[in-house]
Amino acid sequence: MAQKPSIPKGTRDFSPIEMAKRNYIFNTIKDVFLLYGFQQIETPAMENLSTLMGKYGEEGDKLLFKILNSGDYLKNAPEELLGERDSLHLTNKISEKGLRYDLTVPFARYVVQHRNDLQMPFKRYQIQPVWRADRPQRGRYREFYQCDADIVGSDSLINEIELVSIIDEVFGRFGVNIAIKLNNRKILSGIAEVIGAPDKLIDITVAIDKIDKIGLDNVNAELREKGLTEEAIETLKPLLTLAGTNEEKMTTLSTLLASSETGMKGIEEMTYVLDHVKELGLKSTIELDVSLARGLNYYTGTILEVKALDVEMGSITGGGRYDNLTGVFGMPGLSGVGISFGADRIFDVLNTLDLYPADTTASARVLFVNFGEAEAMMSLKHIKKLRAAGISAELYPDSAKMKKQMAYANDRKVPFVAIIGDNELKDGTIAVKNMVTGEQQSLTVEAMVELLGE
Amino acid sequence: MAQKPSIPKGTRDFSPIEMAKRNYIFNTIKDVFLLYGFQQIETPAMENLSTLMGKYGEEGDKLLFKILNSGDYLKNAPEELLGERDSLHLTNKISEKGLRYDLTVPFARYVVQHRNDLQMPFKRYQIQPVWRADRPQRGRYREFYQCDADIVGSDSLINEIELVSIIDEVFGRFGVNIAIKLNNRKILSGIAEVIGAPDKLIDITVAIDKIDKIGLDNVNAELREKGLTEEAIETLKPLLTLAGTNEEKMTTLSTLLASSETGMKGIEEMTYVLDHVKELGLKSTIELDVSLARGLNYYTGTILEVKALDVEMGSITGGGRYDNLTGVFGMPGLSGVGISFGADRIFDVLNTLDLYPADTTASARVLFVNFGEAEAMMSLKHIKKLRAAGISAELYPDSAKMKKQMAYANDRKVPFVAIIGDNELKDGTIAVKNMVTGEQQSLTVEAMVELLGE
Repeated sequence: MAQKPSIPKGTRDFSPIEMAKRNYIFNTIKDVFLLYGFQQIETPAMENLSTLMGKYGEEGDKLLFKILNSGDYLKNAPEELLGERDSLHLTNKISEKGLRYDLTVPFARYVVQHRNDLQMPFKRYQIQPVWRADRPQRGRYREFYQCDADIVGSDSLINEIELVSIIDEVFGRFGVNIAIKLNNRKILSGIAEVIGAPDKLIDITVAIDKIDKIGLDNVNAELREKGLTEEAIETLKPLLTLAGTNEEKMTTLSTLLASSETGMKGIEEMTYVLDHVKELGLKSTIELDVSLARGLNYYTGTILEVKALDVEMGSITGGGRYDNLTGVFGMPGLSGVGISFGADRIFDVLNTLDLYPADTTASARVLFVNFGEAEAMMSLKHIKKLRAAGISAELYPDSAKMKKQMAYANDRKVPFVAIIGDNELKDGTIAVKNMVTGEQQSLTVEAMVELLGE
Repeated sequence: MAQKPSIPKGTRDFSPIEMAKRNYIFNTIKDVFLLYGFQQIETPAMENLSTLMGKYGEEGDKLLFKILNSGDYLKNAPEELLGERDSLHLTNKISEKGLRYDLTVPFARYVVQHRNDLQMPFKRYQIQPVWRADRPQRGRYREFYQCDADIVGSDSLINEIELVSIIDEVFGRFGVNIAIKLNNRKILSGIAEVIGAPDKLIDITVAIDKIDKIGLDNVNAELREKGLTEEAIETLKPLLTLAGTNEEKMTTLSTLLASSETGMKGIEEMTYVLDHVKELGLKSTIELDVSLARGLNYYTGTILEVKALDVEMGSITGGGRYDNLTGVFGMPGLSGVGISFGADRIFDVLNTLDLYPADTTASARVLFVNFGEAEAMMSLKHIKKLRAAGISAELYPDSAKMKKQMAYANDRKVPFVAIIGDNELKDGTIAVKNMVTGEQQSLTVEAMVELLGE
C-alpha cells in the first residue's frame, strides 16, 4: 500500500540544520540555567486527565489532546451518551490520559507528588514539548517546546533578581538586544483600588497600552464607555501619561498609590527589584511598564516580559510570581516565581538577525572522498586518528562518481574534503581541500589534526 | 478540589540526579554520533494513524496510543458501530492521530516526505521518546527514549563497520566491557536452504541458542519434534557445535553453506565486516553468533546485538541492515542499516557498575549562605564574577536558619559552601568551605575562581 505520507497539521519535522540551530538555542539556555544552580527534571508526555482538566479554563480543557483508552474502551460507556452522540460527556468515559498542555501544571503535580523528597526552595528547569489542539496558524503550532525555570518555596525577591539576570545573560549570549519589561500585580491592584474599579483592571491596562497610538482624549473616551467615572479618569491621568525614567515613573506611582496598602507593597517590591538589578549592572534595558498585564489570573507579584529591540516580534520570554501553584493539588501556600523562554520565537529572531554562530552546522568537519577499497580502508585509519582528536570526520561510504560525492559535501557544507588517491596511498599523505577558500594542501594526518583541530 | 496527584502507570518522572545521569548517557551517544558525521532530526510525537497502522503487526496496532479527535468527534460516527459498541472499528472514525511507537517508521516517513531535499546517503540520528500501550512491568515502560542512528541510501558495508565502531566508542567512553554479537540474515537463509527447511529458521536459531544449556541430544530431540528430518539434523550438527574463534567458525560455515548462493553471499559480507573491524582494532569483543535472530521480519543482511560482559542484562543495543525501509510509503529499493541504543538498560548497567563520572551531579559548584540583606547583595556580586568564569553558583534566596541552609547544601551535594559574614563584608573576602574535606579558607573572589575553576 503506497501512500503519500504527511504529518498532522500544526506539527513539524526538524531538519539537521534546524536541529543544529535549535540545539544552539536550547544549549545556551540550559548552560545559563545550570550556571545559576537550577536543576533539570522531566515529566511524562501523558498526564492523567484528572491532573490536567480544569487547570486552563473551559477553553483550555477543549484544547487538551486526549488519549483514547486502550482495548475495548466502549465496553462500559453509558448507553445514553452513545445514543445521544454526546461527545463532550463521553470523553472522560473513554479517555483517562491527555498530553501535557504546558510545563507548569505537571511541575506543580511533580512538587506535590514528590514533596517528601524535595528540599525547598526547589529551583527546577524543564525543557520539553507541549501539545495544544489550537487552530494552527503562522507561528502557532500544536506541538512546541517550552523552556521553563521556576523557584518554588521561597518568597525572596532575590529570586526575581536572579531570573532577570538569567534573561539578561541568555540574550546577551544570543547577541539580541532586549528590553525586560517589569510590572507588579500589586501595583495594578492598587490602581484599581484607588479609582474604585477593581473589575476594570484589564480595561485600564489596555488603555495605558493604547495611549501612544490613539492619544489621551481617545483613551479617556474609551474608559468612559467602559463605565469609569470622571473622578476615576481624572485620578488615572498621571498613570496614562506616565513617562521618563523608571525612577520618575516610580515617584509618580508612589503619589498615585499612597492610599493603597496593596499598591504601596507593590511599589516596595518593584523598587527592590529595580534597585538591585541596577546595582548588578545588566546589559538589557529594564523598563517599568504598568500596561503589562499577562497572566493576571495567576500572577500575584512581579510580572515580566521580554521584547527584542531590533526586530518586530511579540513577547519572546515571560514570567512572574504566583502564590498558590500547588494549592489545587492539596498543598497550599507554596510561593513561586518563574520564567519561560519562547524557543520558537527566539528561533525566528536569531534567523531574522542572522545571529547564529558560524559553527552552527549539521556537518562533520571533513569528508573523505571514496576512490575504492584500498583508499577507503586507508581513509578509515586516518579518520580514526582525527576522531580520537575530537574532530568529526566521515568517509563517503560508496566509491561513487566524484561529482556525486562532491554534491554530498556541498549539500552538507562540509568545510574540508580529504582525498586519498594513488599517490597518497603510496606516501601516506592526505590531500586536504578547504571548501571555502579552495586551497588544497598535502598533509600528514598529524598536520591535518593540527589544521582542523579547534 | 484537592486530589492526590499521580502519573499514568508505565510512565516516569525524572528527578534532577536521574536527569544528570540520563544527560550523561544521551550526550555521550550524541557526541559520538556527531564525531561520525551523523545529522540529527526530530519528528513530531504525533503521526497520522495512516502512517503508523499496519507497520508493527496486528499486536503493534493495538499497542499504539491513539489521540481522540478534537471537537464533536461522535458527530459522523456510524450508527451501527455505536449501537454495537464496536470499539475496534469505531477507533479510526474518532481518532486520526497516534503517538509514535518507534523512531524507524517516522524516519521512513520523513525520508519519503522530504526526498527532494535529501542528499543520499543520509546519515541521521534521532533521540526522542516513544510510546507503547504495553503492560508495564519491571524495566518495561509505556514511555521511553530511543537513540537511533541509521544510514540510508547506501549498500556499502563500510556503514556496518562505522556502526560497529560507534558502538565500540560509546561503550568505551562509558567504561562498559561489551561483546558485539554479529550475524547475517543471509547466513541464516543459507542454513535453512541447505537443510531444506526455510520455514524452520526460528526453531533452528532457538535450538542453537539452547545448546550450552541442554546439550546436543536434547536440542536434536526438540528439532525432531519441530519436524526436521534426520538428514537435516545431521547437516546442522557442525552448526550446533560451532565453536572456536570467529575465523574457525567462518571456516565451518563456509563448508556447510558451500551449496547455497545466498549463504555464501552472507559469508562474504560477514568476512568483510569481521576483517575490517579487526584491522581497525576495537576494544570490544566481536563475536560471530549464528543464534542471533532479532528482527528477522525486516533485517536482510547484517544483524547485531550488544551484551554487557560484567553484568546480567538483556541486549543493550541492537541493529541491522534492511533493504526496504521506505517501500511501504511508495519509495522502494532504499537500503539502510541502523543501530539503536537502549538508554534505559544502559542507565541500569551504569548504575549497577557504578560507572557515572564523579562530576555527574545536579548541583551548582558553590552555594553562598544568606545571612541577610547586605551579605546577600555582596554575595550576588561575587557570584556574578564566578559565573562569568563559567563556575555555577547560587545564593540561598532567604536568610533562613543556618541549619536549613546547610541541609539544602547537603541535600544537593554542593561541593563548596561560601560564607559572607560580618568580617567578610568588611574585608571583601569569602570564607570557602570544602564540603568533602571540611577544610575552610578565607579567599578573595579571584582566588575562589582559581580554586573552583575546572
